[in-house]
Amino acid sequence: MSRTAPDLSELTAPPQSPVAAPTLALRRVAIDTWRENVAYLHRDCAVYRAEGFQALSKIEVHANGRHILATVNVVDDTAIVGCQELGLSEDAFTQLGVQDGHTASVSQAEPPASMAALFRKIEGERLDRADFHAIVQDIANHHYSKIELTAFVVACNRAELDREEVYFLTEAMVASGRQLDWHEPLVVDKHCIGGIPGNRTSMLVVPIVAAHGMLCPKTSSRAITSPAGTADTMAVLANVELPFAQLEKIVRDHRACLAWGGTADLSPADDVLISVERPLSIDSPGQMVASILSKKIAAGSTHLVLDIPIGPTAKVRSMPEAQRLRRLFEYVAGRMHITLDAVITDGRQPIGNGIGPVLEARDVMRVLENDPRAPIDLRQKALRLAGRLIECDPDVRGGDGFAIARDILDSGRALRRMNDIIAAQGARSFDPNDPQLGSLSFEVHATTPGVVASIDNYQIARVARLAGAPKVPGAGVDLIHKLGEAVSPGDLLYRVHAAYAADLEFARQTCARATGYTIGRPEEVPHVFVEF
Amino acid sequence: MSRTAPDLSELTAPPQSPVAAPTLALRRVAIDTWRENVAYLHRDCAVYRAEGFQALSKIEVHANGRHILATVNVVDDTAIVGCQELGLSEDAFTQLGVQDGHTASVSQAEPPASMAALFRKIEGERLDRADFHAIVQDIANHHYSKIELTAFVVACNRAELDREEVYFLTEAMVASGRQLDWHEPLVVDKHCIGGIPGNRTSMLVVPIVAAHGMLCPKTSSRAITSPAGTADTMAVLANVELPFAQLEKIVRDHRACLAWGGTADLSPADDVLISVERPLSIDSPGQMVASILSKKIAAGSTHLVLDIPIGPTAKVRSMPEAQRLRRLFEYVAGRMHITLDAVITDGRQPIGNGIGPVLEARDVMRVLENDPRAPIDLRQKALRLAGRLIECDPDVRGGDGFAIARDILDSGRALRRMNDIIAAQGARSFDPNDPQLGSLSFEVHATTPGVVASIDNYQIARVARLAGAPKVPGAGVDLIHKLGEAVSPGDLLYRVHAAYAADLEFARQTCARATGYTIGRPEEVPHVFVEF
Repeated sequence: MSRTAPDLSELTAPPQSPVAAPTLALRRVAIDTWRENVAYLHRDCAVYRAEGFQALSKIEVHANGRHILATVNVVDDTAIVGCQELGLSEDAFTQLGVQDGHTASVSQAEPPASMAALFRKIEGERLDRADFHAIVQDIANHHYSKIELTAFVVACNRAELDREEVYFLTEAMVASGRQLDWHEPLVVDKHCIGGIPGNRTSMLVVPIVAAHGMLCPKTSSRAITSPAGTADTMAVLANVELPFAQLEKIVRDHRACLAWGGTADLSPADDVLISVERPLSIDSPGQMVASILSKKIAAGSTHLVLDIPIGPTAKVRSMPEAQRLRRLFEYVAGRMHITLDAVITDGRQPIGNGIGPVLEARDVMRVLENDPRAPIDLRQKALRLAGRLIECDPDVRGGDGFAIARDILDSGRALRRMNDIIAAQGARSFDPNDPQLGSLSFEVHATTPGVVASIDNYQIARVARLAGAPKVPGAGVDLIHKLGEAVSPGDLLYRVHAAYAADLEFARQTCARATGYTIGRPEEVPHVFVEF
Repeated sequence: MSRTAPDLSELTAPPQSPVAAPTLALRRVAIDTWRENVAYLHRDCAVYRAEGFQALSKIEVHANGRHILATVNVVDDTAIVGCQELGLSEDAFTQLGVQDGHTASVSQAEPPASMAALFRKIEGERLDRADFHAIVQDIANHHYSKIELTAFVVACNRAELDREEVYFLTEAMVASGRQLDWHEPLVVDKHCIGGIPGNRTSMLVVPIVAAHGMLCPKTSSRAITSPAGTADTMAVLANVELPFAQLEKIVRDHRACLAWGGTADLSPADDVLISVERPLSIDSPGQMVASILSKKIAAGSTHLVLDIPIGPTAKVRSMPEAQRLRRLFEYVAGRMHITLDAVITDGRQPIGNGIGPVLEARDVMRVLENDPRAPIDLRQKALRLAGRLIECDPDVRGGDGFAIARDILDSGRALRRMNDIIAAQGARSFDPNDPQLGSLSFEVHATTPGVVASIDNYQIARVARLAGAPKVPGAGVDLIHKLGEAVSPGDLLYRVHAAYAADLEFARQTCARATGYTIGRPEEVPHVFVEF
């Protein structure tokens, strides 16, 4: 069965029409359509009637030497848009950079140039470098509709891009945005593939390696499906939304920053793709590798330590899977000339005690302050990852990194560096001895004696999100007992914090169905081989 | 690599909140968002702030004992929606059936129940009957976003649904809408899988078999990617948008109708799926079979003759492909208890001469009127298909159908039946001797001597669409020479009609690049084996 050949009447770039494109007066319509450009045309507008635009058809709007694509919504109310006007949603209006009333010309939008390549990928064909560049460029320029974007994401997910295609995709994503150059031979970063609640090692690794003198301009994302991202947690301590010039100065002054990456225009196509991957819970190896490496390479990193947690409720569940993923990362990193050290870590349970921005910030600060209440697992993992990064320093002997990192942490140098970074970014009031948690809470207790035999990463994350994290920084889950610890009936397993009664209730009912903990015999605790 | 498990915090149906859902006054916002429900909430609306709705998040609106889902657009202009109001786009407002100012309660929408099944299909898993029913029900109820719809379509396309899955999908699509029961043992229909311009056999087959006494309540679609559908062409002759009660009476009186199917609510999920398949040019065998058979079964057909054209520029390009598709149709038809007779036909070139609604109506009427200018190929094909349907009559001997059909046509009984149907549906003024064609035209001529060695179905369709068909009924292409005919330089190959200068210019420039005709030696004319 051959597929329907694309209807090229809709694909071929129509030749320049001999007739001049009609013009309308622009009007800002104060509707926030969130990243989707919408054009509002009155049903009696002469242009709408003559051009045969249909609701939801795409048009091209030219004004002020710029042009945007927009989806047509037809309006029957002159209070919203008049017959001689072209209304534009907030975002769309802003992109043109003009005043209300400025004239604009409109025409049927030509389909994105990469559409033929997209159709081939939908049919499972292999794409070449030029195809990926064309597609990613169209995506970054917001020329793809949600339908086209989704088709690309799902087609790439199912087709399992081969490793060279992942390289092409990564390269195209880097090229779609800004690329930083720090003019230093060694620019380090660390990244985790995600899926483990509480895993806030970046906020420890960054000050440690910066204190060692390494350049580590860390930009992070906010949580997408997790209860907290590094940016959400850092935002508890400091301002994370900084203009790029200020970010650069902080990095020059302190060898590091811990900022939100959204302002830097690094791999912008990635952000567009994530808007579709997220609601579909798609996280295929190829897309993960391209997403992570494109951001790091665009940020100017030369050396990357990659954390791949493995465990029964982690993203990666077996060692062969982890090795396959590691090899894919290594292949693409090699082609892109970034030095990658992939580390397979213990992902059987959350890292640290707190899950949610304020709780995680508390844990991080306790580790930095060498507080006896600091979670050991978070400290150990951060030291090992920092050690691996420090060994990228040509003056450090292999195997010495961990001790160097530990010395930096124990001596208080990491804390001082962190405080410098916080001050430079703009400190927020935070006391790790009195973190501002949501005022509502409930507790989950053990009902049988035994040891903690498993903690479900997903269920704990789910409870923390229902409780309000990350939108409510003080909401989340505080784990009291971790894997392998003995408990008796009535012992507190974890405490849930929320700011709103409805959130608390949702979280409570979810816990009532499944706490995420199983209590069992010591031999039931899963063992996983990990590198350290 | 295991995929990210779905974030169940967004999947689990939140339990009934103990807090009553907040209410707002409904306001009709006169914006036509075309099938997508949009809710407009003011940024300062207390509900928007308290509930943490985000732009593009889905909410559920309850009023008047009904409820709808809508996507949130945030508004900053009280002229559009006030702080105590909930604005709804036209369609959404109409669905609730209330007056302006009626109170409505709003809450975060629960994700569609079938989301977990969708995620499994994205990962390439096989779905069972219950999964397909849940998904199709959610689609028919407009509970899927464009992203979710596209993911389903692309995942099914790539996964190549197995034949039992196609059966489940078909069954679910039938169940998603109305199912007609004509209370007769024999209800016949014919359908073509599409792709051949000018192929208007239905408008001949229907009056022929109805004149034979068979019940043939034909509902058709409008063109989606072609220059004319049966409904577009019939609309030149008669009203095709009829309320169901009237349709039923016409069928009782005349044993047939030729109407647009959009008003009958047959397999409504199909219409929703097509809205995504169309821009992606997706037409996989499984989706084609489910789409066609679900519509026919819902319409109450017991016997179906299916036309599968085969040719170098047809949808099906080889006999093995055609046989595979036929077997899939036969399997699903068997499971659904509809008698199917799949006929593989000559799809090497357009059928008839005219392409475009008026031109095709002219050809059809010429065949019915036994006009010597009637296209022979259209007449022959219609007679053979009608003959196959007539042989479903238990009183007709196998092999006699063609002669019976020819007799009905030659005797003028088919024309009389057609005129009865036209009058019953509401005749429009149409004179086949003076069809109202677009007033602008240009001609395409042969430049070398030889015979017509190929006619590209896609290119001819493209030219007809650029010329304005089907939106402009009088636009299209009139073919003068067909496959195998000898031509000399300067001979007219075809004429293009348009109503607007811009359309004509687009069509002309496309013809200048490729006429769709090749002139060659007689032995270059492709031969295809077909059943008759």
